[in-house]
Amino acid sequence: MTSSTDGSAPLSLLAEQILGKGGIEQFTSIVEPLSSDLREVGDRIAEVLPSAYSFLTEAANYATASGGKYLRPLVILTTYRALGFQSTTKVQSLAASFQLIHTASLVHDDVIDHAALRRGRPSIHKAFGEPVAIVTGDYLFVRAFQLAADYGSAVIKKCGEASADLALGEVMQENSRFDMTVNKERYLRIIAHKTANAIAAGAESAAMVAGVDEEIVHSLADYGRSMGIAFQIKDDILDVFGDPEVTGKPLLADFREGLPTLPSILAYDLLPAKEKEEFEELFIVRNKRQAHLLRLRELCDAAGVRELVEDEAERWSQAAVSALQHIRPGPYRDLLEKIAEGAVRRRF
Amino acid sequence: MTSSTDGSAPLSLLAEQILGKGGIEQFTSIVEPLSSDLREVGDRIAEVLPSAYSFLTEAANYATASGGKYLRPLVILTTYRALGFQSTTKVQSLAASFQLIHTASLVHDDVIDHAALRRGRPSIHKAFGEPVAIVTGDYLFVRAFQLAADYGSAVIKKCGEASADLALGEVMQENSRFDMTVNKERYLRIIAHKTANAIAAGAESAAMVAGVDEEIVHSLADYGRSMGIAFQIKDDILDVFGDPEVTGKPLLADFREGLPTLPSILAYDLLPAKEKEEFEELFIVRNKRQAHLLRLRELCDAAGVRELVEDEAERWSQAAVSALQHIRPGPYRDLLEKIAEGAVRRRF
Repeated sequence: MTSSTDGSAPLSLLAEQILGKGGIEQFTSIVEPLSSDLREVGDRIAEVLPSAYSFLTEAANYATASGGKYLRPLVILTTYRALGFQSTTKVQSLAASFQLIHTASLVHDDVIDHAALRRGRPSIHKAFGEPVAIVTGDYLFVRAFQLAADYGSAVIKKCGEASADLALGEVMQENSRFDMTVNKERYLRIIAHKTANAIAAGAESAAMVAGVDEEIVHSLADYGRSMGIAFQIKDDILDVFGDPEVTGKPLLADFREGLPTLPSILAYDLLPAKEKEEFEELFIVRNKRQAHLLRLRELCDAAGVRELVEDEAERWSQAAVSALQHIRPGPYRDLLEKIAEGAVRRRF
Repeated sequence: MTSSTDGSAPLSLLAEQILGKGGIEQFTSIVEPLSSDLREVGDRIAEVLPSAYSFLTEAANYATASGGKYLRPLVILTTYRALGFQSTTKVQSLAASFQLIHTASLVHDDVIDHAALRRGRPSIHKAFGEPVAIVTGDYLFVRAFQLAADYGSAVIKKCGEASADLALGEVMQENSRFDMTVNKERYLRIIAHKTANAIAAGAESAAMVAGVDEEIVHSLADYGRSMGIAFQIKDDILDVFGDPEVTGKPLLADFREGLPTLPSILAYDLLPAKEKEEFEELFIVRNKRQAHLLRLRELCDAAGVRELVEDEAERWSQAAVSALQHIRPGPYRDLLEKIAEGAVRRRF
């Protein structure tokens, strides 16, 4: 529960993940306002969760309490402050809405993936059963839209597009499982829909509420999209090459579930014929043993894809930084830059 | 697909169900405008379904094509016309939104219930798999909210409350399975959340868009709620006492799934001790045989509950009719009355 009412916890979690240990300290002047903003967003969320039926409220609280690092709200709040505003009151419901949309989609993703754990706790369908998990996801989407209802119709539709994109990306991803024909272009489309577009829509909506020029609105959408893609590519790198002691997640989950990500796509592209065949044979196995998974990683190493994928992530990160060039310099713009850089340098 | 683009099909289906064969003929003057309205609503729905990924679009079309009888849109359109408007352009997106919310909840209900069929066709999770069904439900909710985004924030929040209520009702119903302590009051709360409140919210929103006095807005909400409760009680009666040749559905599904409805609640209340005990023992069996189901119905008959439940439905139907007394008389008000009366007299 703490993370939904104590916004400072997500900030330090996020800062440690993205900026590295102590990385937030260079931003002394803005830690306090942003922590306070995040607390307010947590309050907005806590305000809309209660329902006439305590069991549903409890399930909704459970889902949001493991809502994690509040990356989307932080981007929205920091964007808005980077545009020169001293108070974020006008975008707190927006930030809460995007966080709830994200949480709702995680709840349904976990049902779809039969995931047992989410951030170290039993996933909601394990704790409350699948029927309640499905309905709680719906409920969180609905509450997100009720929060968005306070904005103009363009912003509401933007929240809608972000949610539709999540659905789209999830279906595309489901249909890509064990499919060796998925290429880099298609992978980028999937992660744009599933991750990056919602972050872009958050930054874009914050700029729309701020009422800045269209050019700036577009730049901030570009920032969010590029940063989101960089972030997701890094996630996919960590899944293959990360240190499980540091990431806290089981490695090689994407191989196991047959999800084509950039490491496997490039490995399959680059391996010589014999290894390519071996890679395919192993990748499409439905119930892989540990030895299969390790051999797949070995083949990725042999193909030398790690550096290629890191480079790709770095390009997106730099694109995100470039997109900020027309934003007035200052500590909030600096933080947005550091988030984009940290997104690909992080170790978990 | 036809029902999403051909609004006249739902009208004749609905008319046959609720008004009886030929029952719509007394409304010669309004059949054409309402059919045209329903076609427009079908078009609004068809316009928002396309996505950037054809498989998702296909699944969404599949779900809406079996969208059934368009009761919710018809109530919204008829309400709006009953308030004196010659054109329903202003409420067509609203009607489309409520229809999509209803469809989305059916998609998720079918996943939850592992239902194999929906209106005679494989349910969407049978046709497209459970992951796609879950996501398609989300997608339909999202499109519904995007349609609602064109209205004022009060109307959008009303759509939100209707959706939240569906979630609430579904969780309450899930938690009521095989629970003999569910009484009439709780049953009425469940069906209010799961069925009636969304119909009430539809009628209420139409009145809000019409800009009529608050008193009229409340009356129309009352109409929708009472009619919805009457409709649902009748559904529950038909499940126990209906003629499967006429309803086209397998009977006694509520007994089988352990859902307490008014027939079983009253039977359990009224049976003498020995039969009461037998009723409970049979009702809580998880995998009932046909003989169990038939004996449960026999016990309902023995308790004489059929007439009591019909009377209860009739009271709600009459309450719905009474709620219309401050609406100007005319063919559209007449149709709303006939819908409320037909809701409890129908045979399927």
